[in-house]
Amino acid sequence: MSVPPSSAAWIAVDWGTTHLRAWAMDTAGAVSAAASSDDGMGRLSRDGFEPALLALIDGWLAPDRVTPVVVCGMAGSRQGWVEALYRGVPCTPLDSGGFASAPCRDPRLQVRIIPGLKQATPADVMRGEETQIAGFLAGDPEFDGVLCLPGTHSKWVRISAGEVVSFQTFMTGEMFALLADHSVLRHSVTTEGWDDAAFAAALDDALSRPDRIAARLFTLRAETLLQGLAPEAARARLSGALIGIELAAARPYWLGQAVAIIGAKGIGAAYATALGRQGAAPRLLEGDPLTLAGLSAAQASLKEPAR
Amino acid sequence: MSVPPSSAAWIAVDWGTTHLRAWAMDTAGAVSAAASSDDGMGRLSRDGFEPALLALIDGWLAPDRVTPVVVCGMAGSRQGWVEALYRGVPCTPLDSGGFASAPCRDPRLQVRIIPGLKQATPADVMRGEETQIAGFLAGDPEFDGVLCLPGTHSKWVRISAGEVVSFQTFMTGEMFALLADHSVLRHSVTTEGWDDAAFAAALDDALSRPDRIAARLFTLRAETLLQGLAPEAARARLSGALIGIELAAARPYWLGQAVAIIGAKGIGAAYATALGRQGAAPRLLEGDPLTLAGLSAAQASLKEPAR
Repeated sequence: MSVPPSSAAWIAVDWGTTHLRAWAMDTAGAVSAAASSDDGMGRLSRDGFEPALLALIDGWLAPDRVTPVVVCGMAGSRQGWVEALYRGVPCTPLDSGGFASAPCRDPRLQVRIIPGLKQATPADVMRGEETQIAGFLAGDPEFDGVLCLPGTHSKWVRISAGEVVSFQTFMTGEMFALLADHSVLRHSVTTEGWDDAAFAAALDDALSRPDRIAARLFTLRAETLLQGLAPEAARARLSGALIGIELAAARPYWLGQAVAIIGAKGIGAAYATALGRQGAAPRLLEGDPLTLAGLSAAQASLKEPAR
Repeated sequence: MSVPPSSAAWIAVDWGTTHLRAWAMDTAGAVSAAASSDDGMGRLSRDGFEPALLALIDGWLAPDRVTPVVVCGMAGSRQGWVEALYRGVPCTPLDSGGFASAPCRDPRLQVRIIPGLKQATPADVMRGEETQIAGFLAGDPEFDGVLCLPGTHSKWVRISAGEVVSFQTFMTGEMFALLADHSVLRHSVTTEGWDDAAFAAALDDALSRPDRIAARLFTLRAETLLQGLAPEAARARLSGALIGIELAAARPYWLGQAVAIIGAKGIGAAYATALGRQGAAPRLLEGDPLTLAGLSAAQASLKEPAR
């Protein structure tokens, strides 16, 4: 999609492994146009990033001046456009001193890439989520608690005094996709459909006996064969079991804490339901607006005078 | 591979999802020839089974008489040649009364397929392993204890008085393959190589805190990025973590029991090491000879007079 605007004041970019999304921003900080493509980091060689970006944003560039472009996500990884070295926690989610400048042939472009965050013990990394966290904190600078960012690689992030204190990553979304689409369970699990009661039961079971996860998965297949388990119920139970063991291992993060969930509607609601069953009362926020808020905070930090 | 024999007294067949293996047996019960192909159940339609079998065994068939063929494995599943209905435990691993006859056009063939076993609660199924179990019991009919059959779908099987009392399936091998080959961990894990100490440490950690499995996996990726984790160590740790949570959930099976492991050399040894660290002293047996012993027991049961 692309809506031709007048030239942009600056351009915000979220560059993930599989998708590239860009927004033309006006001088008032509003979105004047948006565009996206499948040119994710995963399919690009180092020389391919600038052309892939220009294919989306060329029409937004003024011919006679440099337009700032601020990028978050996997474009800053070692296999990306240029490596933006991880910053170590505890730290603020953004620091303009750490942004990496991407080499550009086109003189109209000035591209800066936001680095991810790293943690030494237990070893962990994030890249992209730090920008959503910055967007969240731009709207709630005094927040003291825990952010949960569910997805392919879910993150639990402890926030205090405007800094990321610690975090932990869970491969829950990727495990679900592999098991539902590529394991023997693909014969038992629908690609769509849901069963709230089955989700809740599997979640509670996994939370109370997470050590039995390895025994639970094949049961879905056997119940399909022997008892005609409904594929919607199988899907919800697989999700409940995997989110359940994530919540069990993440308990030190969420127990007794203020929790906000940042994510797409469906998965965010599933996590909110799950945490609600444990007595937590999480706030639920959409991720995309926070990505844009974080990129705006990054751009604003670049315009501040050096301190 | 194929070695032309004189005509076979009977033919033993192990027909899995991905492979087809056949042995020509002489009147003394010895193997006189062996052949195999990639015509597993997964790539065949119902009409494809007889031609796939004949492609391997045609040269072993006498022209003027019927040759019995005994088949175990997925050829008896609902998607197979003909469905051999599961028998419910507790029961002996084999009962010739339950064998399914496969429809054949070639008059030289008489094909019988061994059914798998099912368990109502918790729901579980096996297909193929019952034949290895029968082969094991043929050599040790008084065995009272637990059999562990590691593999794509590991089975733990309680045996008493010549019967399968109960069993449980774990998707450990399939999870390992999905995570090692198709998840983000594929960038961290070698396809070969091993690190005994890393395996042992990950195993002990998973056994003592199985509830933390969801937190452990992404750590492998992060340690690769931040600390240069050796890919052999990452592979061994992934294996140790997954086998560890299997052993944790299977503890009611192996704790205080006589255990025998039936499996291929590499994976069997890994399970033996793992159980040994927990104070168990399992016997270790190769699976292939037991498959053949089980098929021989099945063929012998067909020749017994009806009781």
